[in-house]
Amino acid sequence: MRVVVYGLGAIGGSVAALLARSGVEVVAIARGAMLEAVRADGLWLKAPGLEVVEHLACVGHPAEIDWRADDMVLLCMKTQHTPGALEDLRAAGVTDQPLFCLQNGVTNEDLALRLFPNVHGVTVMMPATYLHPGKVVCNGAPKFGVFDLGRYPRGADAADQALAMVLDGAGMAGFVREDVMASKYGKLLVNLGNILEASLGRGADFGDLSARMKDEAEAVLRAAGIRVERRGDADPAKRALMNGTEVAGEARPGGSSAQSLLRGAGSIETDWLNGEIVRLGRLHGVPVPVNAAMQAMGARLVREGLHPGALTLEAVAAGL
Amino acid sequence: MRVVVYGLGAIGGSVAALLARSGVEVVAIARGAMLEAVRADGLWLKAPGLEVVEHLACVGHPAEIDWRADDMVLLCMKTQHTPGALEDLRAAGVTDQPLFCLQNGVTNEDLALRLFPNVHGVTVMMPATYLHPGKVVCNGAPKFGVFDLGRYPRGADAADQALAMVLDGAGMAGFVREDVMASKYGKLLVNLGNILEASLGRGADFGDLSARMKDEAEAVLRAAGIRVERRGDADPAKRALMNGTEVAGEARPGGSSAQSLLRGAGSIETDWLNGEIVRLGRLHGVPVPVNAAMQAMGARLVREGLHPGALTLEAVAAGL
Repeated sequence: MRVVVYGLGAIGGSVAALLARSGVEVVAIARGAMLEAVRADGLWLKAPGLEVVEHLACVGHPAEIDWRADDMVLLCMKTQHTPGALEDLRAAGVTDQPLFCLQNGVTNEDLALRLFPNVHGVTVMMPATYLHPGKVVCNGAPKFGVFDLGRYPRGADAADQALAMVLDGAGMAGFVREDVMASKYGKLLVNLGNILEASLGRGADFGDLSARMKDEAEAVLRAAGIRVERRGDADPAKRALMNGTEVAGEARPGGSSAQSLLRGAGSIETDWLNGEIVRLGRLHGVPVPVNAAMQAMGARLVREGLHPGALTLEAVAAGL
Repeated sequence: MRVVVYGLGAIGGSVAALLARSGVEVVAIARGAMLEAVRADGLWLKAPGLEVVEHLACVGHPAEIDWRADDMVLLCMKTQHTPGALEDLRAAGVTDQPLFCLQNGVTNEDLALRLFPNVHGVTVMMPATYLHPGKVVCNGAPKFGVFDLGRYPRGADAADQALAMVLDGAGMAGFVREDVMASKYGKLLVNLGNILEASLGRGADFGDLSARMKDEAEAVLRAAGIRVERRGDADPAKRALMNGTEVAGEARPGGSSAQSLLRGAGSIETDWLNGEIVRLGRLHGVPVPVNAAMQAMGARLVREGLHPGALTLEAVAAGL
């Protein structure tokens, strides 16, 4: 078995380094400055009680990989980059190897299923940071991360068992689930707050916006008949195994949306987090004004090149 | 009321020229050689009994338009270009103006609803061709085209009535439908054959492939509980109003997928036609081998730069 990690950001980078360190054969697909840095100097991972540099195989495009029937692919790019990545995988000759969607949101699995028959969802609970090329920081401890995984749209198979096993062997915890999407919807509820951190800054006063977004989301998911399993700190298994822990010398700047702005990534995944609630609200006739305003805010933050904390609660609330 | 036609291909070009000719205020958004040609010499439309050049306003990007509350937008790009177009519309300041999805497939409405609240579906029955910059050919007669339209996901409103009226006034026929998506699924069944024309050539022997693709699709749509209204020649209203008719000096080279290959467009919409059936088959556990093989064929045609008719029925059947 070989694990191909496609997208070497905070999650992809941490998982790739931890798997490689545990002896799993890993190939990473990265781009730009990250690709250059890893090729030149390896991938540097800092985590609680750990600092390693992994010199793993790293390519810039799926076409550079000699694909094997026993490969499994971990999709770790953000949703806005998934369609292009899937087309590149198909053109490179990937067919029925298992594709695992580690991304936030609940759309990637469906995008993948249009092109590939063997699709799996993964709920990732792993506080990780990517700000500088070649370097990722993981704040999870005692487990580096906790993962739910299963086949999309439902069920579980040997590939899920195999991935869970290698995650366990690398200091993470993998749980095979029959209904992994219920867990991913639970994580979606947690991720609705990413935009608040991105606009107002980590630790800022969010007023009642978090609660109002979640109330809207819960009403929408109920109307849509979507099953939800609580994740994040509402999940006792996760709480028992992994919590955000200081890494000496590394301040955590906020979640993935805040990091996108700090890196000047040029896009943000709000359309697939708050935007998913907005879409479902419009489909099912449930009002979602707070999530819609936050979605518009995400587009504005990117358009205007703003950094986390650039906006005040008053300014955000005025947009409602 | 002003109509913004976004995507000036065979359908967008024909509709824009016909609306402009009837006195409707039209702005077109085009790109590349089409944009240059229309700006230099106008948009040339040939149709049964008609040959006109319309000098309509044409821009290269939504940001060049001074958007008004009474604009309606007709989305006429292919599905693979819809996400980028929607982001450009949002960045340009479009908010709750009605967006009409004239594209083939059933995915555009959902993509639009994620970013915009006021989304409408349109089933387009209009045999039209775009091969040369600045020039479109429409083969529909006596009506140039027949359109079903309604709000997404369901219902109908004043915007639908208004668009139907201007279509009627421009020599087309617009029908307001409460469940326009049922009509779009009906058109999807017709469009499954586009890939046969694109790979084997117009008028070639398709063997039993058409029938097998449709059988798979009908089983899938039944399993998914999706309502379908027959379109194309199975629709008596369409048959009574519009049929493919010779335009002197203009051979029809085939449907939109064949035209994409002939123009070297670099992409094809098979993933949103046969690929939609494949996706639903995988979601609902219904085997869809013929549509899956045809979807793979679409990707191959583009990858290898093949023209319609490049493959034989034997070669295609061997891929099953």
